[in-house]
Amino acid sequence: VSITRNELKNLRALKTKKGRREQALFIAEGIRILEEALRFKIVPKTVFYCPEMINLRAEPLLKQFQKLSVRLNKLPAKDFEAISDAETPQGVLATISVPESDLKKLYRRSYRRILLCEHLADPGNLGTLLRSAAAFGFGLVILTGSSVEPYSPKVVRSTVGGLFSVKIARSNLTEIAELIREEQIRLVAADSSGKSLRKGLVAGSTKIMLALGSEAHGLSADLMKLAKVRIRIMHTDRVESLNVAVAGSILMKDIYELSDR
Amino acid sequence: VSITRNELKNLRALKTKKGRREQALFIAEGIRILEEALRFKIVPKTVFYCPEMINLRAEPLLKQFQKLSVRLNKLPAKDFEAISDAETPQGVLATISVPESDLKKLYRRSYRRILLCEHLADPGNLGTLLRSAAAFGFGLVILTGSSVEPYSPKVVRSTVGGLFSVKIARSNLTEIAELIREEQIRLVAADSSGKSLRKGLVAGSTKIMLALGSEAHGLSADLMKLAKVRIRIMHTDRVESLNVAVAGSILMKDIYELSDR
Repeated sequence: VSITRNELKNLRALKTKKGRREQALFIAEGIRILEEALRFKIVPKTVFYCPEMINLRAEPLLKQFQKLSVRLNKLPAKDFEAISDAETPQGVLATISVPESDLKKLYRRSYRRILLCEHLADPGNLGTLLRSAAAFGFGLVILTGSSVEPYSPKVVRSTVGGLFSVKIARSNLTEIAELIREEQIRLVAADSSGKSLRKGLVAGSTKIMLALGSEAHGLSADLMKLAKVRIRIMHTDRVESLNVAVAGSILMKDIYELSDR
Repeated sequence: VSITRNELKNLRALKTKKGRREQALFIAEGIRILEEALRFKIVPKTVFYCPEMINLRAEPLLKQFQKLSVRLNKLPAKDFEAISDAETPQGVLATISVPESDLKKLYRRSYRRILLCEHLADPGNLGTLLRSAAAFGFGLVILTGSSVEPYSPKVVRSTVGGLFSVKIARSNLTEIAELIREEQIRLVAADSSGKSLRKGLVAGSTKIMLALGSEAHGLSADLMKLAKVRIRIMHTDRVESLNVAVAGSILMKDIYELSDR
């Protein structure tokens, strides 16, 4: 199946936030990410591939999509490159529906560990955090404030498929305050004025929500007020702070290790 | 002091690897990074600033450079933007001499923790790792194989000044093998087939070298052969692996915490 100029135009528009919002679709590109999509039973709307660009590893992938009755579209190299965001495109990408992002609809009582990102600006940092959230059993990630949109090519690529196994909600402080009160979730703020993480904080059936702030300014005063506990990572004074994706990942890993699993 | 067209051309060339090698200079940009340079007594060759672009925080910084007899150069906005690599330039940057990178000259017996990066391809990952190395007392970072050059604008920016407090050596496996043998350094490989980190591994006066591999392929077989110990980070199976900067930072933090400081 070939595609029309108009379809190509729509595809290119998915590289922009506006295009993704209007079409409720995003692009996932590359073999590894699409293998992860399959593993988590994500069925793309359409798969696009470029016969001159794909390697052997792409073939079983394309066959699996075919089995799932996903529409496969051939693209000439020129068109593929116009849509691709990769430095060295592997010749396969898919359009996928943007998932539900309403916190009330996504929340399940079974979530023991939740990540909250406030004003997180950098797509690479968000992608890395989504990957780590998946790794350490943080099944729900809540974005608030001016946090970057999670379905841009850069974020999707940085998750290396991690975004397919976590739920991503967009919310605000009022709704979050209500949730932690009603569900008795312990809100823990990552902050340089905090204390080291202790086992008591996460033991038993405690539900934890870990809050991370912006790269430049940390958490807002309003969010700090909501948090009963502040934790930090001990390090030398040779740097002022850690990268937020590193700090968040370290804290998620420590919480994961200390939790009764 | 104003600058000539030729000086401007040389400055722009510092955005490229070739230019940095030819002039043995690199660019550090932005207030926070230059504050860190001062804190670690790095004296730039020249500081460039754009009066229309700087804010109040830049003034004490410029005064301190003046005290150190660093040459200050005004640049018009158009020229500054041509050199700048920042998305929102703060109007101040400096040229700094590329430091020594010979492992034999940089090595000191006092280093207890060393980071080794093999074939590390992504500038953002290297920058983040340098920042974490500084944070967790890894005073020496060794780059080997096809690892990315550490003085590109992207790496320097990602370190947020962390590169000023660690030594960065460029070396090869033969030299590294010799060093770990002669100095009785325990080479520990980060590898998904490894075990969890235990206190016994780092206790006492043990010197540790933590080895990280490439984003796509991990460590080479040759490096694996050199390493007596392999360690991994336990996580769920919802991702295949962690981001290398995250994994390296987690392991550095754990080694730092477990070491007798």
